[in-house]
Amino acid sequence: MQPVQPGRMMDFPLTLTHFVERARTFFPKSELVSTLADKTQCRMTYGDFSSRVAKLAHALTTKLGVKPGDRVATLAFNHQPHVEAYFAIPCIGAVIHTLNLRLHPTELGYIAKHGEDVVVLCDEALLPLLEKFKNDVPSLRKVVVFSPDPQKKRTSPLPDGFLDYEELIAGEPDRFDWPALDENSAAMLCYTSGTTGNPKGVLYSHRSTVLHSLVTMARENMGVGGDDVVLPVVPMFHAAAWGIPFAAIACGAKMVFGGGHFDPVTLLDLMASERVTFSAGVPTIWIGILAALDAEPKRWDLSSMRTMVIGGSAAPPALIDGFATRYGLEVTHAWGMTETNPLGTLARVKPHLRSGSPEQLLAMRASQGFAVTFVEQRHTDETGRVLPWDGETMGELEVRGPWVAKSYFGDEGADRFTKDGWFKTGDVVTIDGEGYVRITDRSKDVVKSGGEWISSVQLENALMSHPAVLEAAVFAARHPKWDERPVAAVVLKPNRTCSEQDLAACLDGKFAKYWMPDKFLFVEQIPRTSTGKFLKSRLRELYGDVLVK
Amino acid sequence: MQPVQPGRMMDFPLTLTHFVERARTFFPKSELVSTLADKTQCRMTYGDFSSRVAKLAHALTTKLGVKPGDRVATLAFNHQPHVEAYFAIPCIGAVIHTLNLRLHPTELGYIAKHGEDVVVLCDEALLPLLEKFKNDVPSLRKVVVFSPDPQKKRTSPLPDGFLDYEELIAGEPDRFDWPALDENSAAMLCYTSGTTGNPKGVLYSHRSTVLHSLVTMARENMGVGGDDVVLPVVPMFHAAAWGIPFAAIACGAKMVFGGGHFDPVTLLDLMASERVTFSAGVPTIWIGILAALDAEPKRWDLSSMRTMVIGGSAAPPALIDGFATRYGLEVTHAWGMTETNPLGTLARVKPHLRSGSPEQLLAMRASQGFAVTFVEQRHTDETGRVLPWDGETMGELEVRGPWVAKSYFGDEGADRFTKDGWFKTGDVVTIDGEGYVRITDRSKDVVKSGGEWISSVQLENALMSHPAVLEAAVFAARHPKWDERPVAAVVLKPNRTCSEQDLAACLDGKFAKYWMPDKFLFVEQIPRTSTGKFLKSRLRELYGDVLVK
Repeated sequence: MQPVQPGRMMDFPLTLTHFVERARTFFPKSELVSTLADKTQCRMTYGDFSSRVAKLAHALTTKLGVKPGDRVATLAFNHQPHVEAYFAIPCIGAVIHTLNLRLHPTELGYIAKHGEDVVVLCDEALLPLLEKFKNDVPSLRKVVVFSPDPQKKRTSPLPDGFLDYEELIAGEPDRFDWPALDENSAAMLCYTSGTTGNPKGVLYSHRSTVLHSLVTMARENMGVGGDDVVLPVVPMFHAAAWGIPFAAIACGAKMVFGGGHFDPVTLLDLMASERVTFSAGVPTIWIGILAALDAEPKRWDLSSMRTMVIGGSAAPPALIDGFATRYGLEVTHAWGMTETNPLGTLARVKPHLRSGSPEQLLAMRASQGFAVTFVEQRHTDETGRVLPWDGETMGELEVRGPWVAKSYFGDEGADRFTKDGWFKTGDVVTIDGEGYVRITDRSKDVVKSGGEWISSVQLENALMSHPAVLEAAVFAARHPKWDERPVAAVVLKPNRTCSEQDLAACLDGKFAKYWMPDKFLFVEQIPRTSTGKFLKSRLRELYGDVLVK
Repeated sequence: MQPVQPGRMMDFPLTLTHFVERARTFFPKSELVSTLADKTQCRMTYGDFSSRVAKLAHALTTKLGVKPGDRVATLAFNHQPHVEAYFAIPCIGAVIHTLNLRLHPTELGYIAKHGEDVVVLCDEALLPLLEKFKNDVPSLRKVVVFSPDPQKKRTSPLPDGFLDYEELIAGEPDRFDWPALDENSAAMLCYTSGTTGNPKGVLYSHRSTVLHSLVTMARENMGVGGDDVVLPVVPMFHAAAWGIPFAAIACGAKMVFGGGHFDPVTLLDLMASERVTFSAGVPTIWIGILAALDAEPKRWDLSSMRTMVIGGSAAPPALIDGFATRYGLEVTHAWGMTETNPLGTLARVKPHLRSGSPEQLLAMRASQGFAVTFVEQRHTDETGRVLPWDGETMGELEVRGPWVAKSYFGDEGADRFTKDGWFKTGDVVTIDGEGYVRITDRSKDVVKSGGEWISSVQLENALMSHPAVLEAAVFAARHPKWDERPVAAVVLKPNRTCSEQDLAACLDGKFAKYWMPDKFLFVEQIPRTSTGKFLKSRLRELYGDVLVK
């Protein structure tokens, strides 16, 4: 389609090249702080960073023969050299493929082969993992190993055939004459860690990544800005660490990385010592952090914190409320998926609703919120009919926008894309009259009892507000009469007890009678996916017949 | 150019259609407040607004036969129906052409003819102005007249051949099935009010306007958000009111308009009564507002104000400092032009510079700042050589980016665009090592004395810090020996006096000796352009020979 009357503005492509040169030009003194294996910190400036991005770009093109369109994998935790790969690889026209190191080696081999990765940049600590699937990847030509400390010479030599990252880039020029790229060029490949079927690749473009970054910088949304100190707790192998490194580099924010450390104490130490203003991660991380704060409420000074983004799966309201009421810490609840780059919706309370009761405000802040600028949302029933926004009718959430996938890398999963151009998220939601989305289930986890849908997530949130409960997962157990009935698997907090009756009482009056779980199972832990989400398919395998006599 | 490996994200165009539907979907309760001729307010909701946008779109296409690509002009002040035109016209694929009502009728006739406007939407109060040039525009088919009060029936009928806006849209459907538009389609036509030569048209696209809006919403920049109450003092006939209405509608901010009132008291009344959080305008407006505050410091409660953007021409540091020190009000100093949609640079103090002295901080906040995300900056000498960022070397500022013009509507002024893709701004600047731009002059206003350049703007800023000086303009007077020498035209504050010697003393020691103006002229007022900038060409006409005996 050609415009009838085209505008007369510059054809200036939305590529990541602009961000890396902007970092060099305006923010050479901003800092990047990486945490090493021994928990000490390595510090470099954006000036160093942008030079190293250029050096890596030279090494990839001249020494490793990486060509435009090639996939270059990373198998690494969160640290500055990984951010260098985030920019150098796409800016030479190649595609960075972030391998999810929490997957099974068989899956990793499948993904790296499917992505046809030609080079992998790997943390030294992850070489044993790489060994387990490397030979399944015929396209793989070279392995580059990130140094344990970028500022120190490697003490023991690498095995034959492996290249040291620091040696690789050392002699290269610190400027790169970036190629002019079409903004629709692929920039990054991320696989969904689906619990069913093979993982599927989502191929972000420069344009989608740039637009996502701009929206992330809106005060409306996450508001990432140059005066922020950003700690992405979300791993860099998950959906581009939610795009946060791109936004941070674009505005010169100080970045702090936890390396391979995801334990609450290390993260809280970093937040306090580096005066972190902005952090982001999945609920399980924040549940641990809140528990650590509760155990030692005076140990950490978090007064610098502006907001903490929770996403990846639905955060229990009690978690959001706990941070707010006990520590004065603001949580920004957001929803997204690998397929949405990932920011889709965000729970902001609209000004005219701010006079609501504390309960009403928490209900909004704990919802998935509404679509951010340039994302559009709707929900549909099983026949594809668009449903009313009444806060009650459950249906599958569908989204569209410039950073939503239009297909998977290998053309799998065509049934996830509707004929009229929407992506089917697999999340079962309600949408209220103000547009607030509330996830009631994953479509595969919803409990279908006698033809009625029961929301496992709402039951879980209610159970997790009980003072003795650490975690709760509600799943569908087979039932001879009702087909499926809800059963709750509950993990209690250390040294706390409670009975099935206590738990039933805590749900009583809040839900329709038929929503009440038929059974409460006290378990040691709830099985999780590689991204930390409850793995309900495993609960169904273990306990699916608990109601069948 | 085709990407080697295209990404797999949705082809979702960046068009204004998304904003207007977003307003309807998520922000129907947000308010738009327009000030009428009698200074009372008319209030409507975004719900009303989005319905009226659809109605106007229907009326334009069905009743007035407006086709994609057609130019539809507005001749109007700041109010809600003007915002309706901002959206309805581009969203049907036509182009809104905002006529600058402060221009001479001859110029207006030239512009409307050059733009081939087919319809004009006109304020009733401006019909006498329209009459003066209407017949110079052969393409003009229809005149639609905005009602004095959109919520009341017109009391006296319009002359034959004029259509009432409210009657025009009244019976139309309140939904419009917007056409799918290419994002590079023209959306808006704005003419520069150049002081030399004919005005030249800048043709914004949907894409440039949308990207500009997203960057305006960044916390980094203006941070326009849903909890803002936005009062654009900048007229809507200037560079899309700096894009503020687009950003506000995209996030559901309450908008407040002053109508045709630009006097300090009316604006201050609005700021206080509507609890305005964000406002934007040219320095002359803010000079008046600061003087009104100084006269009655306790009259207005401006505690809701988050930031006030000053742009359009360089704000004197004393103005920025006066708001900050006397009233605790933050000024955001920004630079832009019609050709840059308009946001180009913005004066944010980087975190590592915040420990500077008050003088250093003010010097940064009073600079033009540095380029916002996706704008790039450099300065060059008269041969086109790129100059060093040393804070001293003066050269012409050049910019490029996705919301910078690549050519004018009529292909005039080709010499403003360099062969390597930059726009020559006509501003003479220095750029320091941190990237801060400081305007020292318009290229046509710089004083060239014996081969050396003298910055009129720096001298003016120093003069305006004198307590008796309201305004000062330094211009080049002809000189028999030095070719040109600086002369200052000074307007004193009411009931204040000072001598030429006092003024010379206030500059002494701050500049090189040869920068000192040869003469200080005390004048009643400084001639201005239609956009409120000092009209130095007129000063040169009046006083250019003052040094020639």
